[in-house]
Amino acid sequence: MQLQNYVAGKWVKGSGAGQPLFDASTGIQVATASSDGLDFAEVLEFGRSVGNKNLRKMTFQERGRMLKALAIYLMERKEKYYEVSYKTGATRVDSWIDIEGGIGNLFANASLRRKFPDLPYYTEGDPVGLSKGGTFMGHHILVPKEGVAVHINAFNFPVWGMLEKCAVNWLAGMPAIVKPATITSFLTETVVKDIVASGILPAGALQLICGNARTLIDYVNYQDVVTFTGSAHTGIKLKSNQNIIKEAVPFNMEADSLNSIILGMDAAPGTPEFDLFVKEVRKEMTIKCGQKCTAVRRILVPSAFIEDVQIAIGKSLTGLSIGDPRTEGVRMGALAGQDQVREVSDKLKELMSFSQLVYGDLAGFEVSHGSKEKGAYMAPVLLRNDKPFEQTGSHEIEAFGPVSTLMPYNDLDEALELVKKGKTVSRVSEKNRLGLAAH
Amino acid sequence: MQLQNYVAGKWVKGSGAGQPLFDASTGIQVATASSDGLDFAEVLEFGRSVGNKNLRKMTFQERGRMLKALAIYLMERKEKYYEVSYKTGATRVDSWIDIEGGIGNLFANASLRRKFPDLPYYTEGDPVGLSKGGTFMGHHILVPKEGVAVHINAFNFPVWGMLEKCAVNWLAGMPAIVKPATITSFLTETVVKDIVASGILPAGALQLICGNARTLIDYVNYQDVVTFTGSAHTGIKLKSNQNIIKEAVPFNMEADSLNSIILGMDAAPGTPEFDLFVKEVRKEMTIKCGQKCTAVRRILVPSAFIEDVQIAIGKSLTGLSIGDPRTEGVRMGALAGQDQVREVSDKLKELMSFSQLVYGDLAGFEVSHGSKEKGAYMAPVLLRNDKPFEQTGSHEIEAFGPVSTLMPYNDLDEALELVKKGKTVSRVSEKNRLGLAAH
Repeated sequence: MQLQNYVAGKWVKGSGAGQPLFDASTGIQVATASSDGLDFAEVLEFGRSVGNKNLRKMTFQERGRMLKALAIYLMERKEKYYEVSYKTGATRVDSWIDIEGGIGNLFANASLRRKFPDLPYYTEGDPVGLSKGGTFMGHHILVPKEGVAVHINAFNFPVWGMLEKCAVNWLAGMPAIVKPATITSFLTETVVKDIVASGILPAGALQLICGNARTLIDYVNYQDVVTFTGSAHTGIKLKSNQNIIKEAVPFNMEADSLNSIILGMDAAPGTPEFDLFVKEVRKEMTIKCGQKCTAVRRILVPSAFIEDVQIAIGKSLTGLSIGDPRTEGVRMGALAGQDQVREVSDKLKELMSFSQLVYGDLAGFEVSHGSKEKGAYMAPVLLRNDKPFEQTGSHEIEAFGPVSTLMPYNDLDEALELVKKGKTVSRVSEKNRLGLAAH
Repeated sequence: MQLQNYVAGKWVKGSGAGQPLFDASTGIQVATASSDGLDFAEVLEFGRSVGNKNLRKMTFQERGRMLKALAIYLMERKEKYYEVSYKTGATRVDSWIDIEGGIGNLFANASLRRKFPDLPYYTEGDPVGLSKGGTFMGHHILVPKEGVAVHINAFNFPVWGMLEKCAVNWLAGMPAIVKPATITSFLTETVVKDIVASGILPAGALQLICGNARTLIDYVNYQDVVTFTGSAHTGIKLKSNQNIIKEAVPFNMEADSLNSIILGMDAAPGTPEFDLFVKEVRKEMTIKCGQKCTAVRRILVPSAFIEDVQIAIGKSLTGLSIGDPRTEGVRMGALAGQDQVREVSDKLKELMSFSQLVYGDLAGFEVSHGSKEKGAYMAPVLLRNDKPFEQTGSHEIEAFGPVSTLMPYNDLDEALELVKKGKTVSRVSEKNRLGLAAH
């Protein structure tokens, strides 16, 4: 089956054989995807001239109610998406984040309409006098940009990745072009088919490109916006595109992030915070097989507790049932594909050149239900870096899978300094203090 | 006289002979400037480790009062700056925008402190619940970034360009490195000497680099910000810098802008709006010799009135006294230097390949006080483009001097379409409606 692209109001196949896409657990081909032959300049222009025109004249209330109607419509069809989602290697719990989390974004943004008037634009703040006598004054009026929001998404959340971004641009009155990561685009396509069939969105509000984005961003202009989620390597390449720079296109990049979790100095073994911490680490390592951009890659613990933490995490991971997520009892599914397994293994090798494997087995792990050879399976791996100030690779190299590194700190200043080395978000587990902080 | 750089708490000269700087009206050398030999990595690190540390622990009230004290201190010394400003070719009226406008920014930002608490940080909005039972919630806390604000400024406003940017970063708790355009940096240096001598700012809050910025931005990181004002050509080069892209350094660029003014359909000759419009155009063409990024380059008028407007603008420019701004009665001074005259002349040639010169004289104009050969003089030039939809160069090529192009429109939709072609800010002069709108 060849996936279809939804462009200029029509479902069209790309030319050529396309890229084969596989079930992550069985290795069986499920579809092919191709964007070859699409005229990207035309796709963008359709978004601007049809989609933007339709959305910008709607009021915030109308757009918000549209989001709510769409959320209800998709929620009624969610079981269909869960079925397809298994093919990405995701368990039902993993898929809940993607599917119901994604739909939840539509609901949340629908509610945000209450902060806006029943108008197509928003008047921000108070008028500001700029001259004596009021002959010259300023007042911000926020209107939709006249272009398209181009979303280039990651493979790990084919539904949520689309809806969390589109919910915002639709409420703001802009149309979207969604370019999901090809490898899991069959799930995105399933959802977009329903969205289009619903007739809830006005014409041009959503277009879908399965397959390669090729030259898409060579045609965006200063009225468009581009969001990218994926690897820093690809992101930097796109951001350096001369058209993006010359047209001053707003470019939002969400790439490699080495998130951390800190066990507080007073959260000693035996306290509820210690147990909560271990449980949280296990979840972070195993949910979505660790394929979340917010997954904890660095586990910072007081030097005195490091042995206890290591033992406790190991114990909590022991007996974890890995296999085909369609099977009852399976707790961790497959990575999105064989390429991901190879990539994570490569990064793991890099990490192991300066840190020790203290839990896990790269080859000898067991797949309780499914073919270990055909599926993209991998067992959780806990590393340990006792010199996190000297061996700084732990703060820079991301293995985008069930891999995390334990490291010691001596006081809070040290912990904060280590956190900063990852330039990202952290969680703190401490007595009377459980929180999340962006750096 | 060699200008000095103020780095790491010391006034230091660059090595080598430096770039010679001239009085714009007389051509007499006034100084040299060099940044050679400065260690930029060290300069940035000093800003981060000393300036940032000092500013970030101050509260918004303390920072605001500091701005007010600095504004009062500089205002008491303004006559000194007016004297030096004449050397940039600016009249007293031109300099008022630069000097008192710049100091006015300090006052305005000082007053903004009232919107903030007496704390070093700001808690934005309400806490947002992210889970049931309140175990997971979010609240934005705005703190200063831990780096330096690097300001690369344009030659036309050596004082305002520095203070409008620094006022903001100081109130926000960040230190600045100011890199004025070399050609008029002698005025910036004069003001910085006073700022440093005042002792009002904490150590490290301000550093100054006269001369070439060379490799400065190769050393900025994700905690710094860079602002650039100048030509699109240079801006795009800086924005493409791989360090800027890889470190995801916020980069604010204010470059070529083809601003417009629109005469309303009902503002016929004889109405007060018509006269106001003509007066505004004259001011826009002559103040600072048209060397303002907000200067009107495109004059949009109803087709029926174009002859009247052309005659009226011509009349209003007739008899304008051009010359050394130190001389009584001179209304328009010199461009910032001979390079600027050459650059404007080149752009003018490009513009004249598709539009007609309808007022002005490129060579035969008179300089009432001063040497026409030694000074960087130029007379105002009015162009006319009768086919602004076909000859689109008028919306793209900016002659950064006393040059503007008259063009007709037939209805408001046409006027708006023409405005958009310049991607910028516009002014509207219409009965019961005088305004400014950003596009």
